Amino acid sequence: MAKQDDQFKKVVSHAKEYGYIFQSSEIYDGLSAVYDYAQNGAELKKNIRDYWWKAMVQMNENIVGIDAAILMHPTTWKASGHVDAFNDPLIDNKDSKKRYRADVLVEDYCLKIENKIEKEVKKAEKRFGDAFNKEEFVSTNGRVVGYQEKINTILSRLGKSLENEDLADVKLLIEELEIADPMTGSRNWTEVKQFNLMFGTKLGASADSAMDLYLRPETAQGIFVNFLNVQKTGRMKIPFGIAQTGKAFRNEIVARQFIFRQREFEQMEMQFFVKPGTQKEWYEQWKENRMKWHLSLGIGAENYRFHDHEKLAHYADAATDIEFKFPFGFKELEGIHSRTDFDLKAHEKHSGKKLQYFDHEAKESYVPYVVETSIGLDRMFLAIFSNSLVDETLEDGSERTVLRLPAVLAPTKAAVLPLVKKDGLPEIAHKIMDDLKFDFNVTYDEKDAVGRRYRRQDAAGTPFCITVDHDTLEDNMVTIRHRDTMEQQRVKIEDVRGIILKEVDMRNWLMKM
Amino acid sequence: MAKQDDQFKKVVSHAKEYGYIFQSSEIYDGLSAVYDYAQNGAELKKNIRDYWWKAMVQMNENIVGIDAAILMHPTTWKASGHVDAFNDPLIDNKDSKKRYRADVLVEDYCLKIENKIEKEVKKAEKRFGDAFNKEEFVSTNGRVVGYQEKINTILSRLGKSLENEDLADVKLLIEELEIADPMTGSRNWTEVKQFNLMFGTKLGASADSAMDLYLRPETAQGIFVNFLNVQKTGRMKIPFGIAQTGKAFRNEIVARQFIFRQREFEQMEMQFFVKPGTQKEWYEQWKENRMKWHLSLGIGAENYRFHDHEKLAHYADAATDIEFKFPFGFKELEGIHSRTDFDLKAHEKHSGKKLQYFDHEAKESYVPYVVETSIGLDRMFLAIFSNSLVDETLEDGSERTVLRLPAVLAPTKAAVLPLVKKDGLPEIAHKIMDDLKFDFNVTYDEKDAVGRRYRRQDAAGTPFCITVDHDTLEDNMVTIRHRDTMEQQRVKIEDVRGIILKEVDMRNWLMKM
Repeated sequence: MAKQDDQFKKVVSHAKEYGYIFQSSEIYDGLSAVYDYAQNGAELKKNIRDYWWKAMVQMNENIVGIDAAILMHPTTWKASGHVDAFNDPLIDNKDSKKRYRADVLVEDYCLKIENKIEKEVKKAEKRFGDAFNKEEFVSTNGRVVGYQEKINTILSRLGKSLENEDLADVKLLIEELEIADPMTGSRNWTEVKQFNLMFGTKLGASADSAMDLYLRPETAQGIFVNFLNVQKTGRMKIPFGIAQTGKAFRNEIVARQFIFRQREFEQMEMQFFVKPGTQKEWYEQWKENRMKWHLSLGIGAENYRFHDHEKLAHYADAATDIEFKFPFGFKELEGIHSRTDFDLKAHEKHSGKKLQYFDHEAKESYVPYVVETSIGLDRMFLAIFSNSLVDETLEDGSERTVLRLPAVLAPTKAAVLPLVKKDGLPEIAHKIMDDLKFDFNVTYDEKDAVGRRYRRQDAAGTPFCITVDHDTLEDNMVTIRHRDTMEQQRVKIEDVRGIILKEVDMRNWLMKM
Repeated sequence: MAKQDDQFKKVVSHAKEYGYIFQSSEIYDGLSAVYDYAQNGAELKKNIRDYWWKAMVQMNENIVGIDAAILMHPTTWKASGHVDAFNDPLIDNKDSKKRYRADVLVEDYCLKIENKIEKEVKKAEKRFGDAFNKEEFVSTNGRVVGYQEKINTILSRLGKSLENEDLADVKLLIEELEIADPMTGSRNWTEVKQFNLMFGTKLGASADSAMDLYLRPETAQGIFVNFLNVQKTGRMKIPFGIAQTGKAFRNEIVARQFIFRQREFEQMEMQFFVKPGTQKEWYEQWKENRMKWHLSLGIGAENYRFHDHEKLAHYADAATDIEFKFPFGFKELEGIHSRTDFDLKAHEKHSGKKLQYFDHEAKESYVPYVVETSIGLDRMFLAIFSNSLVDETLEDGSERTVLRLPAVLAPTKAAVLPLVKKDGLPEIAHKIMDDLKFDFNVTYDEKDAVGRRYRRQDAAGTPFCITVDHDTLEDNMVTIRHRDTMEQQRVKIEDVRGIILKEVDMRNWLMKM
C-alpha cells in the first residue's frame, strides 16, 4: 500500500514537473477535481484521441464519427433517466458541516475490516513460511472468516437499501456501525439525501423565460438523438457504428485520485447499432477488438483484465469492464455494454418521433440494439502515463528516471542536440529540425552536458535524441540515441526522418492491431 | 441581398443533407443556436483544427499547446473583467413578452434606412446606365446624403450611450425612433437592462456550500493563468507562444446566422508573450503569418481583408480582424490583438502571485506583453464550407453541385467505386480500400450508375474517386477521377496511394505556407 502511494505521488509530481498536468487555476489555489493539460500533456492526450479515432473511424468502413454539442435539449436527460436517477446518496455531519457520500462512508468502513484481514494473512504468512496456503487460510481461519462475513453482510444490506431507495436504512447502517466523520470523529449525522450529479445552467436571459439546461453527464446521448439523421444522410446499413469524443461533466462529491475521477472529463465512445438478436455476438466481437487496441500499445497484457458485471444496469443485457492496473490497483478503464434498445425507445417515447431502421433486404423496420464501447480519455492518459514512469538503475550504478511512453503517443518525437553551442553545430541542428517539423513535434536543446540533456529527454518521454557533433561537419552523419535501450546509432542525416517515422507513424502501429 | 439569402439557405440545407451539420437535439425540436457536427462535419472540423495546430504548434519551435479545462476558478472572470463588464443591453416588450438586444433593434432600424439607400442607387443605376458613377451619386444625391446622415447620427448616439452605460438614453432612442417589436408591432417597452453573457453553474452539492462557477466565455484566460507554469516547466524563453483549441460558451440573446454565432462554440487561440516595447513588430508579424495560413488553403485572396479597429478595447493597443466574405457579407473570421500586459497584471492583482518573466540575459524581470491570434473554429468551418459550395453548368449543359473543399480538409479523401456489383470488382475495390485506410478516410459506393455516384461524391466534397472496371482485371489499373476538374486518369493500383497522398497530405500543404 505504501509503495503504491509512493508511486502515485511520483506520478502526480512528475506530471507537473515535466509539463503534463497542472491543477486548474492553480494561481487561485485550484479548482477541486479539475485539471489542465500542460504543453506535453495536451499533446499526449491529443495523440491518444487520434489513435482511438483512427482505429475506430478511419479503419472501419461502417463506423463514422460525430461531434455533438455539450448543451442538449433538457428532455434528452429526462428520457435517458439522468434527471430522475443520476444521484449520489449524501449525508452531512452536523458538527463539521462536511458532506460525504453515504455509500462511500460505509465502503471505507469495510475497507478497514479488509485491512485487518490483510494483517492476519501477513502474520500467518510469516509464521508458516513456505508452507503457507493463502486460499486455505482465508477460508478456514475463524477470525478472517468472521471479518469476511461481516463485510458481506454490510455490503449486501447497503446494496439492497440503495436499490430500494431506502435512504433511512443507509442512515441506520451508518449509526449501527458507529461510523464517525473521518475528519473530526463526530457521529452527529443528518438524514441521507439523494443529490443529482448533473451540472445545471440556464439558457436565455430572464428568470421567467429561461430554460433549465444541463452540462451533458455522458456523450452517448448525443449519438442516440442523432442516430436517424446520421443513418439516413450517411446511407448507413446496419450493423454500423457512430463514434464520438468529447467533454462530459459530473458534479462529483468525492472526486479523488488525480485525473482518474474528475468533474470535467473527456469520453471516447462508440455506439454500434445492430439487429435485435445479434447483440451477443457483437458484444463479444467488440470485447475482443477493444482489447486488441489496448494491447497494440505494448504496455503489457498483464496490466489488463476483463471484469464482467454480475449486476447489470437497467438498460443492459451484458456488460464488462476492461480494467487496468493503475498505481492504486486494478480499476475500470473502459466499459463495453450491450445496451439493448433502451435509449432509442426512451427517445421515441419522449420525442414522439420514430427512431427505427428500415432493413431493405428483410423489408422490415425495427429499433436497433446497441453495443457500446466507452473509454475515459483522462483515465487512458493516466494508465499510459503511470505505467510508463520508471526508475532504473543502470549498469554503472547510476539512476535514471525514464518515461517509456509508446513512441506513437509521445508528445515530442525527437530532440535535436548540438554537442556544443558553437562551431556551426547549432546551425546544422536547426536545419535538421526544419526538415523534421513537417512530420512531427521536434524540440531543440543546447543547454548543459549532453548526458544531462539525454536524462532530461528521458524523463520528458522523448523517444529519440539526435546529436550533432564535430564529426557531423565531416561525414554528414549524426547519432540517434534511443530512449528505452539507450543505444546509439550513427546514421546519415538524410536517413534520420525515415528511421524515426518508421517508429512513430500511426500507420505502422495501426497495422500491428 | 436576395441572392445572398438564397446562397445561405443552400449552405444550411446542403450541410444537413450531406451529413455536415445537424441542429442540436433535432428530435426534441432543437436547441436554439446550438448545432451538432455530423459524420462529415466532425471530420472537416477536426481537419481544420489539426491544420491550425500543426501550423502553430508543430511548425514553431517557440510555441507550445495546452488544453485547459472549461471550468475555472471564478476569480479568473473577476480578474478578466467578464463578471463586471461582459454584458448585453436587453429590452423586453411588455405585450409580446419577447426580449431583444436594444442595440440590435437600433441597428436593424438603421439597416432599413440602408436598404432605402440601396433602392435609390438601383433606381439611378437603371436611369443612367453606363454613365452611372455610384460613388459620386451617394455623395451628392440629397436624399441619399440625408439617409446616411441620419444613420450616422443614430449610431453615434447609440455608441456613446452604451459607452457611458446610459441605458436610459438607449431606451429614449428606441422611443424617439418609434421602433416596434418586429414580431408584433407593439411599442410598449420595458427599461433597458444589462445582462451578463456568461453561463453560470454551481460546483458542489448543497446550496450553502456551493461555489458559483461559469462556463468559460473565452479560452484565452486558461492560457494566462497557466503562463508561468508553462514557461518554467517548458523552459520557454521570450518571445514564446501558448496555443489552445477548445469550447467556450456565451448566453447570446440574439444568436443567428447558423453556426456563425452560437451559444457553444470552439476557439483556436494563441497568446504570444513578448518583451514590452516589441509588441508592435510582433503584432505586424502575426498579422502577416495568419493571413499566410488562410491563403495557403487556396480559397482566393479576394475573400479576405483586414479590418483594423479604430476604437480599441480597454486592454488593447492595436487590433485587427481578418474578415472573410461569408454568404451574408464580409464578417470577422479571426482577430489579432495586441493585448498589452492587461490580463497578466489583472491576474497578479487578484491572485497575489507574481506573473513575471526573468530575462537571464538582461538580468531583469517583467510582466510580458501579449499579442493574440484568435479564430473561431465554427466560423472557419462556415467560411470554407460556404465558399466551397458551387453550382456548375457543365459543357453538355447539365448541372452539378460540387463542394470544392481544399483536399487537405476534405472529410473523406477518396471513394472506391466498382463499376458493377459483380465479376470480382467489389473484391478488388475492397482490397484497395484496405490499403488506403491506414492513411486517410476512404469510402465505398456500389449503388447506382457510376455517373450518379460521381455526382454524389462531388456534392459530399470527396476529392478523388477510384473506379474499378473490367479492364482492371486484366491490367491492374484503375481510373482516378478528380472532383474539381472531372479529369480522369488511368493509373496502376500500386500508384494510387502515392498520387492521392501527394494531394491530401498536410505536410505538403504546410510546405506551401
